[in-house]
Amino acid sequence: MSAWNLPKAIEIKEVGTRDGFQLEKSIIPTDEKVRIINALSRTGIKEIQVTSAVHPKAVPQLADAEEVMAKIDRVPGVLYSVLVPNLRGANRALAMEADEWELMLSVTESHSIANSNRSVDAVLEEHTKVVDLAVANGVQVRGSMATTFGCPFEGRVPFERVQYVVQAYYDMGVRSISAADTIGVADPKLVFNTMSKLIHQFPDVQFNLHLHNTRQMGLANVIAGIQAGVRSFDSSIGGLGGCPYAPGATGNISTEDTVHMLHLMGIETTIDLAKVLDVTKEVHQLVHHDLESSIYRAGVSYQIHEAPKTQEKVGE
Amino acid sequence: MSAWNLPKAIEIKEVGTRDGFQLEKSIIPTDEKVRIINALSRTGIKEIQVTSAVHPKAVPQLADAEEVMAKIDRVPGVLYSVLVPNLRGANRALAMEADEWELMLSVTESHSIANSNRSVDAVLEEHTKVVDLAVANGVQVRGSMATTFGCPFEGRVPFERVQYVVQAYYDMGVRSISAADTIGVADPKLVFNTMSKLIHQFPDVQFNLHLHNTRQMGLANVIAGIQAGVRSFDSSIGGLGGCPYAPGATGNISTEDTVHMLHLMGIETTIDLAKVLDVTKEVHQLVHHDLESSIYRAGVSYQIHEAPKTQEKVGE
Repeated sequence: MSAWNLPKAIEIKEVGTRDGFQLEKSIIPTDEKVRIINALSRTGIKEIQVTSAVHPKAVPQLADAEEVMAKIDRVPGVLYSVLVPNLRGANRALAMEADEWELMLSVTESHSIANSNRSVDAVLEEHTKVVDLAVANGVQVRGSMATTFGCPFEGRVPFERVQYVVQAYYDMGVRSISAADTIGVADPKLVFNTMSKLIHQFPDVQFNLHLHNTRQMGLANVIAGIQAGVRSFDSSIGGLGGCPYAPGATGNISTEDTVHMLHLMGIETTIDLAKVLDVTKEVHQLVHHDLESSIYRAGVSYQIHEAPKTQEKVGE
Repeated sequence: MSAWNLPKAIEIKEVGTRDGFQLEKSIIPTDEKVRIINALSRTGIKEIQVTSAVHPKAVPQLADAEEVMAKIDRVPGVLYSVLVPNLRGANRALAMEADEWELMLSVTESHSIANSNRSVDAVLEEHTKVVDLAVANGVQVRGSMATTFGCPFEGRVPFERVQYVVQAYYDMGVRSISAADTIGVADPKLVFNTMSKLIHQFPDVQFNLHLHNTRQMGLANVIAGIQAGVRSFDSSIGGLGGCPYAPGATGNISTEDTVHMLHLMGIETTIDLAKVLDVTKEVHQLVHHDLESSIYRAGVSYQIHEAPKTQEKVGE
């Protein structure tokens, strides 16, 4: 009988206003986005992926990226990140004064072609220039890897493919890398094995996991990731987000459920769960649909109810 | 970097027709129940908790227990179990020729009073007689423990309380014990610690976990339980079930999601997932409401989609 070796603390990065909002069908007014981001900034969270510098035609919902970044209150100590797909996006993100650029690419060739019309190597080549621009301007960079654990067109991804992309990021000088289960197919064993190997091979890289709960394995994969040594996770307020290949399916793991579980396990985050739940309520009123957030629906564990004083005896 | 030590196989016990159906508001016709149980019997599952011998006034939905047990086809190799709350229920279960009796009790005093109007010790005393009756008639017994990980009236449960009930079951001769997270509050660390200690202290007992997904920790708790050495889990077709203290909240972990995760991890069950999903469809048509089954909604991992042949290039 051995005890679980759990870390004292885990970092949580909010991605709901980017990865979540981008899949909302009705356009959310800019000021409403700003209000939610400002409220999130006051929950104790240390990183918010605010928006994306993709082409407005590709993601109309985030066409107001510049305006949102200009209007939000920047709380000291909070890192405001913007998704950057290419050099053009990097220049936009630079003008937005984003604290961090999240570089985007797909690990698998067919997903890269489908999503960006370019091969993985072509994206990596452009990312080298993006990283140089970031370094020249003192901007932090995080390299993200879509389809790390599975691709809608290729299925399971050989570890060597993931390793290849991590090595390419590493060679650019990137030391913060996020492995994404873009379509929510990963199981805990795959997450544990992949992240264990990556952490072993790249000990000076800080790895993050971006997990989806599409097939109910989201929090199980958080546990697997923690056991493999991952100390940073993305999550989405209200579980906003989804999966284009599984209409109606759950998207990102929810911030509320993730933080709730970690706190119950005695693992610290910087986040005040009660404050997050206040923001969830605002998000719920904003999006007009049910949220995939169990804690928002069911409440936290160990609420004490009043026991019934008498019980009508039935049977015997 | 160490590999996960995973077992070759895990046992799954279906509880949807008892724990799930009992919370359905509309009465399900007996023949429909029989049809679902018969279909489940042909999925490869080895144990089905068919119904309950509680007083019909307490659970009107299961008032047809005798008729259901008489009408189902008993597939050789499948164990048909009935929930037994007391000696009167045991005599009913005996007449039903149940293969196994699942003894019911609450670990916490206030929940025991609220649910059965008797103290834990009073229930244990009667259970001793139930076990004697089972032994005399060659019936298998499983001792279940509601509120093992949390009670709606008392909150977290001291381990000593759980240990006390396990010891009482042990002293009756019971060697198969199920720990239930009745209201879905347990976190993976609590599950790991509790089950590790119990397995260490009672090495000749076969422990089972009955987990709810109310707060999204269901499959994470399966992982924790497996790591602690648990090799048997309850689950419910379609995730049927719920939580009386969190209206609208998710109930039992779903059979589909659990089996799907285990198979992806290379852990065998005896169950054919495709056959289970056929039954899920029938259950869905029967209950007329959404099911909390991610695999039923999203499909299994690693379905291959056709990649788009061309992609309209947007932006740079």
